[in-house]
Amino acid sequence: MAGSTFGTQFKITTWGESHGAALGVVIDGCPAGLPVCEEEIQRYLNRRKPGQSRYATPRKEEDRVQILSGVFEGQTTGTPISLLVFNENQRSRDYGEIAGYYRPGHADYSFDAKYGFRDYRGGGRSSGRETIGRVAAGAVAAKLLSQLGISILAYSKAIGPIVAEDTSGVTPEQVRSNPLCMPDDEKARQAREYLDQCMKEQNSAGGIIECRITGVPAGIGEPVFEKLDANLAKAMCSVGAVKGFEIGDGFQAAASTGLTNNDGFYYDEQGKVRKYTNHAGGILGGISDGSTLLFRTAFKPTPSISAPQKTVRKDGGSIEVSIKGRHDPIIVPRAVVVVEAMAALTLADLMLVHLGARMEHLKKIYGPDFG
Amino acid sequence: MAGSTFGTQFKITTWGESHGAALGVVIDGCPAGLPVCEEEIQRYLNRRKPGQSRYATPRKEEDRVQILSGVFEGQTTGTPISLLVFNENQRSRDYGEIAGYYRPGHADYSFDAKYGFRDYRGGGRSSGRETIGRVAAGAVAAKLLSQLGISILAYSKAIGPIVAEDTSGVTPEQVRSNPLCMPDDEKARQAREYLDQCMKEQNSAGGIIECRITGVPAGIGEPVFEKLDANLAKAMCSVGAVKGFEIGDGFQAAASTGLTNNDGFYYDEQGKVRKYTNHAGGILGGISDGSTLLFRTAFKPTPSISAPQKTVRKDGGSIEVSIKGRHDPIIVPRAVVVVEAMAALTLADLMLVHLGARMEHLKKIYGPDFG
Amino acid sequence: MAGSTFGTQFKITTWGESHGAALGVVIDGCPAGLPVCEEEIQRYLNRRKPGQSRYATPRKEEDRVQILSGVFEGQTTGTPISLLVFNENQRSRDYGEIAGYYRPGHADYSFDAKYGFRDYRGGGRSSGRETIGRVAAGAVAAKLLSQLGISILAYSKAIGPIVAEDTSGVTPEQVRSNPLCMPDDEKARQAREYLDQCMKEQNSAGGIIECRITGVPAGIGEPVFEKLDANLAKAMCSVGAVKGFEIGDGFQAAASTGLTNNDGFYYDEQGKVRKYTNHAGGILGGISDGSTLLFRTAFKPTPSISAPQKTVRKDGGSIEVSIKGRHDPIIVPRAVVVVEAMAALTLADLMLVHLGARMEHLKKIYGPDFG
Amino acid sequence: MAGSTFGTQFKITTWGESHGAALGVVIDGCPAGLPVCEEEIQRYLNRRKPGQSRYATPRKEEDRVQILSGVFEGQTTGTPISLLVFNENQRSRDYGEIAGYYRPGHADYSFDAKYGFRDYRGGGRSSGRETIGRVAAGAVAAKLLSQLGISILAYSKAIGPIVAEDTSGVTPEQVRSNPLCMPDDEKARQAREYLDQCMKEQNSAGGIIECRITGVPAGIGEPVFEKLDANLAKAMCSVGAVKGFEIGDGFQAAASTGLTNNDGFYYDEQGKVRKYTNHAGGILGGISDGSTLLFRTAFKPTPSISAPQKTVRKDGGSIEVSIKGRHDPIIVPRAVVVVEAMAALTLADLMLVHLGARMEHLKKIYGPDFG
Repeated sequence: MAGSTFGTQFKITTWGESHGAALGVVIDGCPAGLPVCEEEIQRYLNRRKPGQSRYATPRKEEDRVQILSGVFEGQTTGTPISLLVFNENQRSRDYGEIAGYYRPGHADYSFDAKYGFRDYRGGGRSSGRETIGRVAAGAVAAKLLSQLGISILAYSKAIGPIVAEDTSGVTPEQVRSNPLCMPDDEKARQAREYLDQCMKEQNSAGGIIECRITGVPAGIGEPVFEKLDANLAKAMCSVGAVKGFEIGDGFQAAASTGLTNNDGFYYDEQGKVRKYTNHAGGILGGISDGSTLLFRTAFKPTPSISAPQKTVRKDGGSIEVSIKGRHDPIIVPRAVVVVEAMAALTLADLMLVHLGARMEHLKKIYGPDFG
Repeated sequence: MAGSTFGTQFKITTWGESHGAALGVVIDGCPAGLPVCEEEIQRYLNRRKPGQSRYATPRKEEDRVQILSGVFEGQTTGTPISLLVFNENQRSRDYGEIAGYYRPGHADYSFDAKYGFRDYRGGGRSSGRETIGRVAAGAVAAKLLSQLGISILAYSKAIGPIVAEDTSGVTPEQVRSNPLCMPDDEKARQAREYLDQCMKEQNSAGGIIECRITGVPAGIGEPVFEKLDANLAKAMCSVGAVKGFEIGDGFQAAASTGLTNNDGFYYDEQGKVRKYTNHAGGILGGISDGSTLLFRTAFKPTPSISAPQKTVRKDGGSIEVSIKGRHDPIIVPRAVVVVEAMAALTLADLMLVHLGARMEHLKKIYGPDFG
Repeated sequence: MAGSTFGTQFKITTWGESHGAALGVVIDGCPAGLPVCEEEIQRYLNRRKPGQSRYATPRKEEDRVQILSGVFEGQTTGTPISLLVFNENQRSRDYGEIAGYYRPGHADYSFDAKYGFRDYRGGGRSSGRETIGRVAAGAVAAKLLSQLGISILAYSKAIGPIVAEDTSGVTPEQVRSNPLCMPDDEKARQAREYLDQCMKEQNSAGGIIECRITGVPAGIGEPVFEKLDANLAKAMCSVGAVKGFEIGDGFQAAASTGLTNNDGFYYDEQGKVRKYTNHAGGILGGISDGSTLLFRTAFKPTPSISAPQKTVRKDGGSIEVSIKGRHDPIIVPRAVVVVEAMAALTLADLMLVHLGARMEHLKKIYGPDFG
Repeated sequence: MAGSTFGTQFKITTWGESHGAALGVVIDGCPAGLPVCEEEIQRYLNRRKPGQSRYATPRKEEDRVQILSGVFEGQTTGTPISLLVFNENQRSRDYGEIAGYYRPGHADYSFDAKYGFRDYRGGGRSSGRETIGRVAAGAVAAKLLSQLGISILAYSKAIGPIVAEDTSGVTPEQVRSNPLCMPDDEKARQAREYLDQCMKEQNSAGGIIECRITGVPAGIGEPVFEKLDANLAKAMCSVGAVKGFEIGDGFQAAASTGLTNNDGFYYDEQGKVRKYTNHAGGILGGISDGSTLLFRTAFKPTPSISAPQKTVRKDGGSIEVSIKGRHDPIIVPRAVVVVEAMAALTLADLMLVHLGARMEHLKKIYGPDFG
C-alpha cells in the first residue's frame, strides 16, 4: 500500500533507505505564497543530525537538503515541493553481516515476513534515517504554522527513569541549552550519568518527549475518526521506536474523577472562552479548544546494543550476536525535532481541512472580489 | 472533511446523532462470501447497550440493527453493507437546557467554535451513541478475522485507580463474568466499591482497557506512516474520552533498557520464528511479528456529572451547572466492545492491504485458474 | 475496495441494491450552515423517477427521500448527512429467471467473475437505481453551488442519431418543456418518432447529454492528476451506460489546428480576463478559466431489450433470451439529472479543495477575528 | 490539495517543473519481488523524448533516469521507488518574455488565477515535461502487468483529420515502424504531408490515440465510482491537452441500438465465457469482462504556435504574440507512451485492489502455509 504518504491536504510522501543513493520527501498541497528556503529546512535537519554529542552515534552525516521543485523566487508555488538528501557516508560493510540474522528489537524479521526479503543495509527503510523526509517536510509545515501565529516546542520529558518534573514554563532556550534537550539542569545532569552507565554496560536507554503547541485557534480537528488527537496519535506512533502516546493528563486521567478532570470554562477580558485548567491537553471531542496542545510520546530504548543477545539466523539455527557499528545509546534527543515535525505536519493538514467547515468560509473566499 | 470514514480497503463511514432519527454505518470493501447476519451484529451492539448494570445509564435503548444492503442469501456480496439503528428513546427535553451553555469536559464549545452552531441534543455527533456504527461494523470485521483464525479480547485493566495486575491468561469467560468486564474478581469487587463511592459523590470515574489479539500472522502493517501500531493508535484515540494509547510495554518501555526491552528470537518446534518475551506487544517496525498483539487505551472519567461545576453561557456570563439526565458513572465497561470493534476494523483493513505486498501473492491469485 | 465513495472533501458514499430494503447515501464534509430540506432533494429525485412519459419504464417508484442525520433546524451541521430511500416496489419474481444466465450488455457476467456470485435481482448494485444516492447527494451539492452563484444545466444533446444542433442559448425552461429534455422542438419530435420505432422493434436507443455550468470562478481544479476535467471525466464515466466524455470541442479538437482551437484572451469592461471563444470548454491546464464549463457524455442504448438475443447460461450452454420486465427504451432523459448531480458533486468537492491553495486564504480565514 | 498523486494501492506522486532542477516520481505500493532496472524505465522515457523526428521539438533532452530507492539487488523491495531525471537543457531565457502575458491555449492564466502567481518558465508544472514522472512510473507498472500476461499497445489512430481506419490487428512493430506511431503506411504518409503543411503555416495539429490492452482477466474494476473505465477516463483526461475519452464504441454507441450494441456471450472451447463482438471495449458495469480493453483519447493541437495570436498582458492591455522557442507541431506521437503509461498505472492499481474482493482470496493468501 501507499504507506509512505501522510496527510490529506498538506500531504507528504517520503522515500529512501538508510544505505540507498538518497532519501527525500515530496510535499503536495502546500499553499502557494509561503516563503521557504533551504537554510530553514537545513536548520531542522541539523537538529536530528548525529554526532552532536557523545550520546549520539559518531557517524558523520552532513544531510544537506536540496529543494528540487515547487519553490520559485523564494516562495512556494502551490505545486509539489521535492526535497532530497544524498546519502554520503554509506559504510555498507558494517552491515553485511546482519543480512543473515534477525536483530532483536529491530524490524528485520517482520520485513522478511512481509516481503519475502529485505534491504538489510542499516535497516533499509526501517532505519532512523527514514525520519529525514519527515523533518524536512515538517520544517515547511512549521513555517506555515508560524505565519498563523502557532509555535511548537518539544523536549525530553524523561531520559530512562529520570523525569523532568515541572515543564509548564519551558522555553526554547532551555531546551537547546543542553545536548539532551531536557529543560531541567539537575535532571539533565542525572540523565547524563544514567546514560554514561548504560554505555559502559553496552546497553541503551529510552525516554519520553513532551510537546506543547501554542496559538492554535479553537475549531481544528474533525469529529469522529479524524480527531486532532487521533491524528497526532497516529503521527507519533508512526515514528520508529515509539510505544505510546497520551494527550493532556493521558493515562493519569484514567485514575482521576470527572470533578477533577473536567476543565471549567470562563470568559477572559477579551471575551474569549478560556479554561481554568487544561487536563484535556487542548482538545475536546477531537477538536482544539483554543488552549495549549500538550501531549507526550514514549520511546523505547535503542535496540542496537553491543551487549550480547540471543537470536536466530535467517536460515535456521540460534546464535548470540553483538551489534557492532556506530549506534545511538539513546535516540530521544535527536527525536525531539521529529516529534515537532510530525506535530506540525498533522496540524497544518487539519488547518487546511478546516477551511471547508463552514459556508461562511466559502463565501469569504469566493466573495465578489474572487478570481 | 470526510472525518467520518475509517480505513482504506475495509472502509467504514458512520453517521448519526444522539437524538436524530437514526444512526448507522456503511461498510465498503468487505470481501464477498463472508457469512453475516443481523443476530451476530446485534450481539456486539448488545454489549455496548446501556442499562445492563447499575454502573451504566438507566436509559433504555434497544438499538436493533437492520442490514439494508450488501448481504444476499446470508453472505456479503462485495458491495456496501448498510447497517442502521433507529433512535427510539429520544428525550430531547432532558437536553434542551444545555443548548445555552458549554458543559465542561464535553465538545459543546469546540463544536460551536468549529461550525458556528451545533446540534445540542444529547451531544449530537459527539455523543457516545456515535460508537453504534463502529461496533456494528466492527462485528463484521471481527467475523472476517475469525475466519482467518484471529481472536480479539478486550477487558477492563483498570477502573479508576484499581488495577487488575496479572492479565496474561485472561479468558472471554472471565471478562463476561462481571458487569465491569474486569478479569480479576477481587479487583472487580474493589472497583465496584470505588464506583459506588463516586456515584454517591455525584462524581464519575475513568479507566484503562487492555486488548489482546491472537492468531495474527507476521507481516501485517506497512512501514513508515501506515504502521499497524500507528493505525491502532489512531483507531483508539478516535474514540470519545480516550486520552492515551500504548503498545506492549508502552510508557514503561521508556524507562527500560535495550537489554531488557529487546525480545530475543528462537525457532519453535514447527520451525516458526518466535520470541522469548513480548515487550514489543507483537509489532516490530510497525509490522506484526506473529506474537500476540497487546495494547492499552486510557479513558477519562465521564464528563457528565451532577456535582456542580463552573462554566459559561454561550452568549456570555458564568454559571454553575449540574448535569442532569441519565448518565454513565463510568463508560469503560461499555467501551470494551468499542475497543474490540476498532481493533477488528484496523486489522481487517491492513490485512486486505497486505494482500498486495508481494508479486507472489498476485501470481497466486491471478494464476492460470483465475477468472 | 471502497468503490462506493466519491470526492475528497465533499465526500459521498452510496449504498443499496435495486431490490434490497433501501438505497441511500452519506454525505460527509458538507460545510455547516447550508439550508437543506427534504423537498429540495425530492425535486431532484423526481426528475430521475420513472413513469413520467411513455419513453420510460412504467414501474412505479415513489422514491421518497428521508434525511436521517446532519441537518438540524433546517441547516447542515457539518456532520454526515444520511439520506435514505426505501425500495417499495420490488417485484423480484420478474428477475428470478435471470439468475441463471448472463444478459448481454449487462454486468451479470463481470460481477460473477469478480465476486464468485451476485445479487441477481434487478441488477443488484449495477442497477440504474444505484443513481438514487448520487442524485440525492447531488441536490445538496447543487444547493451549495447555487449559494456561490453557480448554475448547472444538462439536457439531451442527441437521442440516437437525432442531434439538437445549436444548444448555445439553452434555458432550463426549454429543457423541462419536453419529456426527452431536448431543447429543440423539431429535433425532439423526430426523436420521439425514432424512439417509437425502436420500441416497436423491441429495441432501445442511446444518446448524448450535454452540460453547461455557469458562474464558476477561475482557479478551480488542481494541476496534474486532479484536474477539473479529469474529475468530471471520472464522475461521468462512473455512471452506468456511459461510454464517452468530452470537454469543450472534445474529439473535434483532435482534427482542428492550434490557430483555430486556441482561445484568445481579452479584458472585459470590468477588467476581468475573458476569452473570445471557448473551444477549451472553460478549463485550461485542468483549472477553470472563468468561462462556461461545457462537456458532453455519451450513453449507450439500454441493454435490456425484449428482442431475442444469444447468450449463455451461467452453468454452461447457450440460450436465446428475451428480457422481460419493465424497462426504459432509453435512459438518457432520466439520466440528465444524474449528469447534473455528478457535475455538482465534482465541482463542490474541488471548490472546497481550492480553499487551501493560497496562504492568503488561510490568513483570511484564520485572521485576528477567528475563533 | 494533493493533486500530484494517482492511484490508491499502486500509488504514484509526481513532482517537478519544466525548468526546475529535476523532475521525478515516487511509486509507493509496488509489490516486492518485481525485477526492475534503469534500462527498462529508460526505454519508456526514450519513447517520449523529443528530437526523434522533425515532427517533434528539436530541444535536446537526454532525460536519464536514476533509481534512488526501493530497488535492491535488482528487485523491488516493497518500499517506495524514487525515480529522478535532472533537467539539463534549461534555456530559461526563451521563456522570460512569457512571464508578462497569457499564452492562448496554455494554463498561464488559470495558474495565476489559482495561485496568485506562477513559475512561468516553460509552463512550469503544466509543461509536457510533467509526463516524465508518469512515464517512468508507468514503465514499472507495465513490467508488473507483463508478469501477469498483460500487454498494452497504444498508437496514433488519427493525426489531425487523417484517420487510420482498420486498427484491429495492429502490432507493436507497425506502431514503431514510423515516427508518427500510425499503424497504416498510406495514412501515415498523408499525415506527414498534413503536418508539413501545418508547420509551413506556423500552425499545429491534434489527433487521437487508441489503446488496446490484452490479457486482462475478467473481474478487474469496482462497481459504482471506481469503475475501470471511470479510472481510465480520469487517467487519460489528466494528461495535458486531452479533451476527450471513449471506451469501446464510445460516442458511436450513443447513435446505435441495444440490439446492435449488446455483445452476446458464448463459451469457447476451453469453457471460458467469450463475447461475439466487443462494442463494450472489454468492460461491463465498470468491471473487465475478459476481452480486449479498447479506448481512445483525443488530444488538442499543440497550443504553442508561432503564428500571431491575440492575447492580454498580465498587468493589463492587449497584445499580439508569436510563441517562439522549440515546440512540437504535434504532441500525439510522443504522447503514445504517456497513454500506455497511464493505462498501466490504472490497471495495476485496480488489480491490486481486486485482491481483496473475495474471502477465498484471503484464505488462499493467509492459508496454513502463510507467514
